[in-house]
Amino acid sequence: MTDIPYKIYLEETELPKSWYNLRADMINKPAPLLNPGTGKPMTAEELSAVFCSDLVAQELDETNPYIEIPKEIRDFYKMYRPAPLVRAYCLEEKLQTPAKIYYKFEGNNTSGSHKLNSAIAQAYYAKKQGLKGVTTETGAGQWGTALSMACAYLGLDCRVYMVKVSYEQKPFRREVMRTYGASVTPSPSMNTEVGRKILAEHPGTTGSLGCAISEAVEDAVTHEGYRYVLGSVLNQVLLHQSVIGLEAKAAMDKYGIKPDIIIGCAGGGSNLGGLIAPFMGEKLRGEADYKFIAVEPASCPSFTRGTFAYDFCDTGMICPLAKMYTIGSSYIPAPNHAGGLRFHGMSPVLSQLYHDGYMEARSVKQTDVFEAAEYFARCEGILPAPESSHAIKAAIDEALACKETGEEKTILFGLTGTGYFDMVAYEKFHNGEMTNYIPTDEELAESIAKLPKVSE
Amino acid sequence: MTDIPYKIYLEETELPKSWYNLRADMINKPAPLLNPGTGKPMTAEELSAVFCSDLVAQELDETNPYIEIPKEIRDFYKMYRPAPLVRAYCLEEKLQTPAKIYYKFEGNNTSGSHKLNSAIAQAYYAKKQGLKGVTTETGAGQWGTALSMACAYLGLDCRVYMVKVSYEQKPFRREVMRTYGASVTPSPSMNTEVGRKILAEHPGTTGSLGCAISEAVEDAVTHEGYRYVLGSVLNQVLLHQSVIGLEAKAAMDKYGIKPDIIIGCAGGGSNLGGLIAPFMGEKLRGEADYKFIAVEPASCPSFTRGTFAYDFCDTGMICPLAKMYTIGSSYIPAPNHAGGLRFHGMSPVLSQLYHDGYMEARSVKQTDVFEAAEYFARCEGILPAPESSHAIKAAIDEALACKETGEEKTILFGLTGTGYFDMVAYEKFHNGEMTNYIPTDEELAESIAKLPKVSE
Repeated sequence: MTDIPYKIYLEETELPKSWYNLRADMINKPAPLLNPGTGKPMTAEELSAVFCSDLVAQELDETNPYIEIPKEIRDFYKMYRPAPLVRAYCLEEKLQTPAKIYYKFEGNNTSGSHKLNSAIAQAYYAKKQGLKGVTTETGAGQWGTALSMACAYLGLDCRVYMVKVSYEQKPFRREVMRTYGASVTPSPSMNTEVGRKILAEHPGTTGSLGCAISEAVEDAVTHEGYRYVLGSVLNQVLLHQSVIGLEAKAAMDKYGIKPDIIIGCAGGGSNLGGLIAPFMGEKLRGEADYKFIAVEPASCPSFTRGTFAYDFCDTGMICPLAKMYTIGSSYIPAPNHAGGLRFHGMSPVLSQLYHDGYMEARSVKQTDVFEAAEYFARCEGILPAPESSHAIKAAIDEALACKETGEEKTILFGLTGTGYFDMVAYEKFHNGEMTNYIPTDEELAESIAKLPKVSE
Repeated sequence: MTDIPYKIYLEETELPKSWYNLRADMINKPAPLLNPGTGKPMTAEELSAVFCSDLVAQELDETNPYIEIPKEIRDFYKMYRPAPLVRAYCLEEKLQTPAKIYYKFEGNNTSGSHKLNSAIAQAYYAKKQGLKGVTTETGAGQWGTALSMACAYLGLDCRVYMVKVSYEQKPFRREVMRTYGASVTPSPSMNTEVGRKILAEHPGTTGSLGCAISEAVEDAVTHEGYRYVLGSVLNQVLLHQSVIGLEAKAAMDKYGIKPDIIIGCAGGGSNLGGLIAPFMGEKLRGEADYKFIAVEPASCPSFTRGTFAYDFCDTGMICPLAKMYTIGSSYIPAPNHAGGLRFHGMSPVLSQLYHDGYMEARSVKQTDVFEAAEYFARCEGILPAPESSHAIKAAIDEALACKETGEEKTILFGLTGTGYFDMVAYEKFHNGEMTNYIPTDEELAESIAKLPKVSE
């Protein structure tokens, strides 16, 4: 046993004072968002109809490496940050691996995930702009919960469109949001034109994330004093989430630890992009080298089986086009897919980095993910979210590879959250009822063929 | 804003090395447990048929003020302790009170509460004794979850009898326990004689805590290599839970903070007894003075409306008799009562202290508790357990009293856990469907009249 504690907590005074903007160090910048109507890059003015002005500035900022975190946001961060960097002593011992395993744990807050880091930032800028409130969509419910907490703290109205099937199957998530004063509407709803249209065409539909996005955007742009906010994919979100990586790096530097491998689960990329940010910055500047691994579900494999192209972010085709790895906005993950990581695309920043060879990606099967989750829970105590467990699975695989070769590699992975609201999926796993779904080549080819035609 | 951080985390090296045994400093010791058959004090040998030997020794130890925490338990504690002492800056600001409010937060672990502190200790001593496993009962599920986590870590079999109505209404708690490898049986069950008898007499019963205790005890004493463990009431449990108060006091001492008022919710007394332990020790030794407030539900008011007498701990009348404040083991809290704190009695240690005037007690109404819980969640972020929210309610009341008088009192309360598995109760509260139940004097007189006759 070394002198490294089980949990490294930075002092509150060591909380990062600025976010790190990875784009400033990228040689090939991520492609701009395009206006789906004109095919031209979205201007700040166009974006400001949907997003808060300060957030638009952050979205478009490719040059400033550091952006100061306002005091008000830092004060909120202090209620649940710095988040611990944990040495997985018990996992190492159980695996009998010479590898040293660390995880940055983002689940010690009521939203249960890292989503709160960006939620408070987005809510703060909305409040600063004098807005009445914000709208958003939520699928599994993590983002909606985080946003409702941030809005309650700032006294901002929060309107959440929750995919109807989740609204009905996850009443507890809904009640958490209501505890924080948010209004939660099952989507599709009669609140919006797009919702009414979908309901008229498909009266029995249980909704989709793409549809909920479209409703939330319409709600924002048709109501004075409201803007739309999003919990992943966007550049601004990755910027806010850089607090994860900055803290992890500061904690490691404090103890002279240098990771060899950095692993994150990847849906829209908010956690992965935040965790790797400062490390990737060093790699881009040629100051250090790390192996980065993005882990995605085999049922929604945008990095490993998608294509790098412009696509819609929503199914309603209201949002700007983004150039990203995508399996097509018309692709809908199989119903047996549990938890988040269901987005058809991937953050443009991460997509560009992956395209340029700075990062690896792999996909993992759902039952293997839950097996890793349970293995981890029993020795490390924490019950992980299914999303986070994709990274656990890859970390265990890397640690076992070290056991084969005898290498004492240092592994860092992101434990993005807890699985307290995912027990239905755990129950299926325990009962042997969980299945895997891997899309066929034909299925993916079909949805990719529907990508919008864009002349770059 | 002072220099006191939002969260005070002790270093791992500052984790208490011994538990504090409050009984050593009590002038009037708690009355001994009695054998219900003979009416004589339970001997170590008699207790050893039900409990692990080392735990029996701790149960009976009234003289040693400090008992060393074994290294193995300290290593486990390091996975989630030291737990933070939080300065409730946002709550203070929202209340506009001159009072300074602190809470010791025990919810940052998967069991969601302080119960894990004693669960790992009890599981450790069972393992040390070479046992195969342990049995227990659980109502709301916090204790069962904590015990299953501890047993998974140590490779010990864990058999939980869960009150049938909870088993059916709280499937998620059940699945968490299964994730940790515990077997969970709805009680009453066909596993035990007492269960079969109850099912024959009352085929449609949804069970009770008292019945589940009886089943768990019978299971333990009729199976080679098993012992029964309990999450509250017992002296040993309060001993283990002293880690809460020891950490809180160490964190306060570090910053030169001295609480005026210390508040804890009280069901069986495990949290309250642990939180106040070192402070009460100072009071008993005449070194300092504090105002202690026990807060209990108006629907189950053992301190405020009970009597100080010998009573059974279970309804099956298998367990030893304990002298405590009780409203009678035949009393069953109203079905509208949400969360824990449903036990008819109170820890003998705390009962004696209350009887001797060292502590105050008050009861609070359920809807007031949930109102306080929501108020707290919206400013402090954390979604509290209904149990913990009893203490929140009293802390807010004390802070508002300071606002009236202008006194800058320092308040410390125990935030024992999170409410993630209590959203059904929160939903009732949001929908205006939550009611209060306060037993009539006649009801209490009836159950108190059924107390066993004991000649002391």
